[in-house]
Amino acid sequence: MGTDSPFLLAAVSLLSALHMGYLARRVGLSRMAHKVLPPSVTGPPEFERTFRAHQNCAEFYPLFLVTLWTCGLFFCEVTAAAGGLVYIIARQIYVNGYVKSTKKRLPGFYLTLAVIVTLSLLALIGVLRGILHKYFNIHL
Amino acid sequence: MGTDSPFLLAAVSLLSALHMGYLARRVGLSRMAHKVLPPSVTGPPEFERTFRAHQNCAEFYPLFLVTLWTCGLFFCEVTAAAGGLVYIIARQIYVNGYVKSTKKRLPGFYLTLAVIVTLSLLALIGVLRGILHKYFNIHL
Amino acid sequence: MGTDSPFLLAAVSLLSALHMGYLARRVGLSRMAHKVLPPSVTGPPEFERTFRAHQNCAEFYPLFLVTLWTCGLFFCEVTAAAGGLVYIIARQIYVNGYVKSTKKRLPGFYLTLAVIVTLSLLALIGVLRGILHKYFNIHL
Repeated sequence: MGTDSPFLLAAVSLLSALHMGYLARRVGLSRMAHKVLPPSVTGPPEFERTFRAHQNCAEFYPLFLVTLWTCGLFFCEVTAAAGGLVYIIARQIYVNGYVKSTKKRLPGFYLTLAVIVTLSLLALIGVLRGILHKYFNIHL
Repeated sequence: MGTDSPFLLAAVSLLSALHMGYLARRVGLSRMAHKVLPPSVTGPPEFERTFRAHQNCAEFYPLFLVTLWTCGLFFCEVTAAAGGLVYIIARQIYVNGYVKSTKKRLPGFYLTLAVIVTLSLLALIGVLRGILHKYFNIHL
Repeated sequence: MGTDSPFLLAAVSLLSALHMGYLARRVGLSRMAHKVLPPSVTGPPEFERTFRAHQNCAEFYPLFLVTLWTCGLFFCEVTAAAGGLVYIIARQIYVNGYVKSTKKRLPGFYLTLAVIVTLSLLALIGVLRGILHKYFNIHL
């Protein structure tokens, strides 16, 4: 790859993947602490909250990657990478809160939504600008 | 990105990500309507069907993105983007059907499979053609 | 795409997507064999192990794709593609083992972790080298 490669997007993606691995590990540790053997996914409330917290992160992860890369490639790489870092931190806040109580999952969750909405809108601007330029010869 | 960038693939990916966000939201609304508090994922049959419908979409989403982008980059972008739009509509039909009854999930589901199989085969043609050209100097 | 396109990464990604489709199909067959109708996800232990095995593969799949592509684009394509093939085989060993007993899931699982850690580290080397070159003008 040349020096114009999206190294920052790659770095944030790698970091987010390692973070997802860490969250999966946390479910494993919670299984051990609460003696919930696989394949069971039910047990004490704290285990169930930890499990659901990770599930929610996993459900949103591909969606996050799509908005990160489309924003980074078609709008601005530095903005997208910064948003990606905020997203990872927000997911950590979300999981830490959710493990404590169902209600405490909300602040972190709303922050992840804010990041995804922002990245999506910026990506949409970049992609629509590109489509207008390429297919309609309109320069914005 | 230059004008040869895959804007259509980016646009369809963004649309699919927003659609996944909408389906997640629908599970949240179903939680409220049926008073199923997180982290519980069991409750009235309609809630459980809504929950599983979204889970199935989430399980297939990365798989869809792989076939969309490999077909779009290595075979034909317009074909892949059109297939992607059909996939999103098929997922909507699938979820709408599944929420009503387990059996009504099938037409939408078969349509999503048809799209994934088609995109995969076209992608395979493009990728194999590329490998033959690059590594074996065979031009098809 | 030109002849410098990452055809091997695309081929391995397609193969992994088809493998994920096959694993989803296996859950469907297990549903039929054990008469577990959707949306239910509980039933005889063998069904529950088959279900969880696929869930775990689905949770890790986006994470795998991120390490595959960052390693392949920023470190070495052939190494990443080879690692990707080992990962697919390891996931097959994991599922085959998990279907038999909870304990037999471990060898395959550890192999998938070994692949992900290796691809991540190599990707990290490539990405950090790129960042040092691009933003700090340091050539390693």
